Amino acid sequence: MSFESLFYPDTIAVIGASRKLKTVGNDIVKNLVYQGFSGMVYPINPKADELYGKRVYANVLDAPSDIDLAVIAVPAPSVVDSVKQAHQKGARAAVVISAGCKEIGNDALEYELTITCQERNMLLVGPNCLGVINPKIRMNASFANLMPAKGNIAFISQSGALCTAVLDYAKDLGIGFSKFMSIGNKASMDELRLLKYFAEDPETKVIALYVEQLKNAPEIIHVVQNLSRSKNPKPVILLKSGKTEAGAGAIASHTGSLSGGDAAYSALFDQAGMIRASSVAELFNLAQMFSKNELKPVHNVTIITNAGGPGVLTTDVIVDQGLSLAQLTDDTVQKLKDFLPFAASTHNPVDILGDAVAERYQKTLEIVAQDANTEAIIVLLTPQSMTEIEETARAIIEVHQNTDIPIVVSFMGRETVAPGVQLLKEADIVTTAFPEPAAKALACFGRFVRMSTKPISTPLAYQDVNKGKVAAIFGKAEKEGKTAFPEAEAIEILKAYNFPLLETAFAKTADEAFRIAQSIGDERTTFAMKIVSPDILHKSDVGGVMLNIAKADVAQKFNDMMKTVAHNTPQARLEGVLLVEMAPQNGIEVILGVNKESELGTMIMFGLGGIYVEVLKDICFGFAPLTREDAIRMINSLRSSALFKGVRGQKSSDQEKMIECIGRLSQLVQDFPQIVELDINPLLVLPEGQGAKVLDARMMIETLS
Amino acid sequence: MSFESLFYPDTIAVIGASRKLKTVGNDIVKNLVYQGFSGMVYPINPKADELYGKRVYANVLDAPSDIDLAVIAVPAPSVVDSVKQAHQKGARAAVVISAGCKEIGNDALEYELTITCQERNMLLVGPNCLGVINPKIRMNASFANLMPAKGNIAFISQSGALCTAVLDYAKDLGIGFSKFMSIGNKASMDELRLLKYFAEDPETKVIALYVEQLKNAPEIIHVVQNLSRSKNPKPVILLKSGKTEAGAGAIASHTGSLSGGDAAYSALFDQAGMIRASSVAELFNLAQMFSKNELKPVHNVTIITNAGGPGVLTTDVIVDQGLSLAQLTDDTVQKLKDFLPFAASTHNPVDILGDAVAERYQKTLEIVAQDANTEAIIVLLTPQSMTEIEETARAIIEVHQNTDIPIVVSFMGRETVAPGVQLLKEADIVTTAFPEPAAKALACFGRFVRMSTKPISTPLAYQDVNKGKVAAIFGKAEKEGKTAFPEAEAIEILKAYNFPLLETAFAKTADEAFRIAQSIGDERTTFAMKIVSPDILHKSDVGGVMLNIAKADVAQKFNDMMKTVAHNTPQARLEGVLLVEMAPQNGIEVILGVNKESELGTMIMFGLGGIYVEVLKDICFGFAPLTREDAIRMINSLRSSALFKGVRGQKSSDQEKMIECIGRLSQLVQDFPQIVELDINPLLVLPEGQGAKVLDARMMIETLS
Repeated sequence: MSFESLFYPDTIAVIGASRKLKTVGNDIVKNLVYQGFSGMVYPINPKADELYGKRVYANVLDAPSDIDLAVIAVPAPSVVDSVKQAHQKGARAAVVISAGCKEIGNDALEYELTITCQERNMLLVGPNCLGVINPKIRMNASFANLMPAKGNIAFISQSGALCTAVLDYAKDLGIGFSKFMSIGNKASMDELRLLKYFAEDPETKVIALYVEQLKNAPEIIHVVQNLSRSKNPKPVILLKSGKTEAGAGAIASHTGSLSGGDAAYSALFDQAGMIRASSVAELFNLAQMFSKNELKPVHNVTIITNAGGPGVLTTDVIVDQGLSLAQLTDDTVQKLKDFLPFAASTHNPVDILGDAVAERYQKTLEIVAQDANTEAIIVLLTPQSMTEIEETARAIIEVHQNTDIPIVVSFMGRETVAPGVQLLKEADIVTTAFPEPAAKALACFGRFVRMSTKPISTPLAYQDVNKGKVAAIFGKAEKEGKTAFPEAEAIEILKAYNFPLLETAFAKTADEAFRIAQSIGDERTTFAMKIVSPDILHKSDVGGVMLNIAKADVAQKFNDMMKTVAHNTPQARLEGVLLVEMAPQNGIEVILGVNKESELGTMIMFGLGGIYVEVLKDICFGFAPLTREDAIRMINSLRSSALFKGVRGQKSSDQEKMIECIGRLSQLVQDFPQIVELDINPLLVLPEGQGAKVLDARMMIETLS
Repeated sequence: MSFESLFYPDTIAVIGASRKLKTVGNDIVKNLVYQGFSGMVYPINPKADELYGKRVYANVLDAPSDIDLAVIAVPAPSVVDSVKQAHQKGARAAVVISAGCKEIGNDALEYELTITCQERNMLLVGPNCLGVINPKIRMNASFANLMPAKGNIAFISQSGALCTAVLDYAKDLGIGFSKFMSIGNKASMDELRLLKYFAEDPETKVIALYVEQLKNAPEIIHVVQNLSRSKNPKPVILLKSGKTEAGAGAIASHTGSLSGGDAAYSALFDQAGMIRASSVAELFNLAQMFSKNELKPVHNVTIITNAGGPGVLTTDVIVDQGLSLAQLTDDTVQKLKDFLPFAASTHNPVDILGDAVAERYQKTLEIVAQDANTEAIIVLLTPQSMTEIEETARAIIEVHQNTDIPIVVSFMGRETVAPGVQLLKEADIVTTAFPEPAAKALACFGRFVRMSTKPISTPLAYQDVNKGKVAAIFGKAEKEGKTAFPEAEAIEILKAYNFPLLETAFAKTADEAFRIAQSIGDERTTFAMKIVSPDILHKSDVGGVMLNIAKADVAQKFNDMMKTVAHNTPQARLEGVLLVEMAPQNGIEVILGVNKESELGTMIMFGLGGIYVEVLKDICFGFAPLTREDAIRMINSLRSSALFKGVRGQKSSDQEKMIECIGRLSQLVQDFPQIVELDINPLLVLPEGQGAKVLDARMMIETLS
């Protein structure tokens, strides 16, 4: 099994080659023959002799030499036989273009195809895909008729139809590809396997994906984190469709109903550090940004413009996206003042006025590129009477060659600025037709670079957990066919994982009650006291329940209660008193839950509790296992996270305990994947240093097959 | 003073014409001479004889005939004289291109120029502007060198530099203009005056603006509402820069600190029904959408595509933007099934498969255009082997000509699809290079049409207010130089405008106390009772304060209190008891405030109260005067507005009373523009039918000059 045979074959057989124009089997042969591939191509078709100057063989077994790669475009029923024959001829990879498998309900055929390849140690791309293109060796083993430029972007699409449009967009933007492929039904070759391959591929600097569904979030997170935080970080940019689909599907459970499919994907992308584009256009602006620039930390940006309005529009996006306008050094400002006209703005945005010619752009750029506070430059140009469009492009290119600072250019307009834009593209400079996308791409770039330098943290894990106890509880439950764990039983499980619970203790004497009370909570802790007697059913009727008892009063109240109850029910045997810690009054209610997304993994949900969970839906998700960094990101991602910082003079909340609870839950669901649903609601988060308390919980498990 | 002279002049003088290439004074003459203007052009320059074949006059007074319009490009110090001379030659409008006025701090010159024109009843555009273009008469009285196509969009830009890029974008999109102008410093001619003109201009169907600042929100709202809800509604689309600017400026007052500049502009645009584009690109996609389609209600959209992925991406935007996918009728589905291949999807999105040729597009379009549930169609095309790009464009054009249903097209890609896109543009069909903007533009279109059919409502106003009383209070305050009104005094003012306040009454006897208590609130109302005596300072020390007294107990407690206080302070004269209504426990705290935005007007602020006002900043704004529709929109715009609908079995809140409080506040600030700040915080909103209660308030006024 070899990626070498897939991407760098010497010999390719096209099984299902066709003489009929505008068919898939014809296009593939034409693309392989006419677009510069220098290896051998064997068209296979029992009814033809020659195609595009190549001899056609009736069967791949008739081919004059062994093959590396089989591209298969025969009708579905013949696909498996074609694979077997290709294997006999030495093929170690198959690209199955043919449709007619899972996508039309024929799961059995797809399974057979997958197994056939697997048993033969052959790579399988598809079925139902457009094919594979490797511009470096000019191999177009697809039925898309454009050979893209050679470049450093690996593009993987779940949709074949999108690919042809993508090739067009890419050409227009002047970007090229290291590999370009459609993966169709993903029977075997999916994004995960390709991410692992491209992580090591020296030709690939940027990975761009179009995705409809994914599987196995934890492994994707693992792979992408390793990709994007390595010594040589590679960004993974993606466009995910089906955002709103989930709105339609009703999910039964409570946590589930708040999550929905797209929330799960968003959590996955955030956690992995994947960069999600919000549109096809943005996908390509981001791809060119990463493709054409070396990774540099970018936070402070300087705008150079010949028009005020676009400068302000761009500033808006810069600030909106979390970047800053660079504060130019005094030295820079002075140098700019020395040559710019009086009316120019020598502060950021640097407005060099409507009559700026190329030379003025160039001088300004040279000065700003040397500015100590500037980490990236956005150059804006509107075509005015004096504007030298091509000359300005050349000036930018010259400065760009002498600096490693990222430069993003927007020549505003279309036809008028086209000659300049063309020059910029040829020089591998990022250009956008409008100013806002330039700023947005730069912001994403900056965020990625900041993220890429963070070390990968390990999942939160605690030693003080009793895994055996929970295993025993679940083991027993499984035997009994029991799946639901209401409050008391759920609390028992949480206790084994050392969640902060309200404490309960039994005291036989006033002294003991006092001692126990001292050992629980802090000086603010109060207790409910309940008489313990096998003879008393309605405790409160006989004075057997007291609430809000301060620590200092516990002994006294013990004696009082004993006396009162003995007086009211002289015949009852009184064994002692149950001390139950009461929920503190000074906390913030949050909700902490678990929801299993069948294909992706188990998600931890964290959010604002109380009535606001329903009204504001201020919640966030993360896939187990979670790291400390993940937990902090989740907490801070709530819109109301400022609540935890303390408002109106209140103390800030115990963030460490929130992180710990999230971490313990992550560990619990990792240890016990049978947990499909769990709600800790509310978890009462107390002020800093005072911890948190689980007030209620419930849990559901499933039988693991 | 005449817009006719400005937009349809017969004779134009260019004062400050220049022989020097690439100068403003040269470009304007060239544009007027070479771009097809059929009127007379008199270049004015004391040092030249001829320019572009036209005789140059030393002074406008030397011109052989009177003029209608003067385009002035002389140095700033000569501008006023030029205007005066132009007026002597009959000019009724002046376009002042010259810079050097307010924008460099020369306010005096700008004032003199404005007054000079005003006294002479001349229209003044600029100064510091690019000029005016009227494509219908091919008049390019600007220094932008492109004559745009004739069309139905009036474009008004505060930035001249943006205009040149805009002309390029417009050409690329195939859209044209009724008028195209830059208004520079807006000394006299501003957006408001132009909106009024374009409201009546039969050539103008759509008004597009690029704006940096606006003034007088109430009048803009009035004008735009009349524009967009008339029999012949015209949409106003705008791009407003400076979104994040406000973040920098700290505003002193509490309400103010929550508003900030962009919140005010957002409120203005929402209230007026202006359509705000989020980028230059979006501005033009929206403009072409409205320009090329007749206004039709659009909610249910059908997507026709030859590729699944883009269909899903477009569906995401459709749903995200509040539109729905049309549910095709059974009849439509059957007709589609009858001719589409088996693998096609005959449900929405209608996927006609990658091998769809033009004929398949056309048949599908014809069927869908007849579908009873489809209000608009988005056609997507990805270029695949079988795709007939130009033929498909022609098929769409043909269907488009036979239906009045809006059709929006995205041929995905660039070079490959360009010939088809060109045909679509020439046929005035909306096209976008990417699918998402198509859906977004359609959604804006649908929202506008829905809004445009709503009647314009009148501002909320109440008869039961005591304007005289408030006038007296403010009159007295002004004499005393007093500007701040703390709680008690603010409450007094609110009382005069009949806001719902906690009631207070004095009772001399137990019987009277009982009677009064019955007349206040409802059966849940409780009272604080306070002894009234000139001799008692610390009422609670002598048993002179009781809280939470139920109605039924008032008489009894009156007697108890009298007895206790008399016993404790036998020497005190007891006059009776003050009954103070207590705040109900079952309300939701909101905040209702006022903030004056100096240039725009007075804003009413409504938002969630309590600690959440700081954490969530869940607030909204509207400019007084507000209508019932505005008040409802404001209430529903809160993220937590679901709180008012009742959550977890709680009753819904008294929406009518919220509307009333908003309306009374709007009326108060209309009646008294000296109010610069007012916070009703909290306003306690009770369950439906129970009203609301002002619990606290404070107010600031300013001296009106």
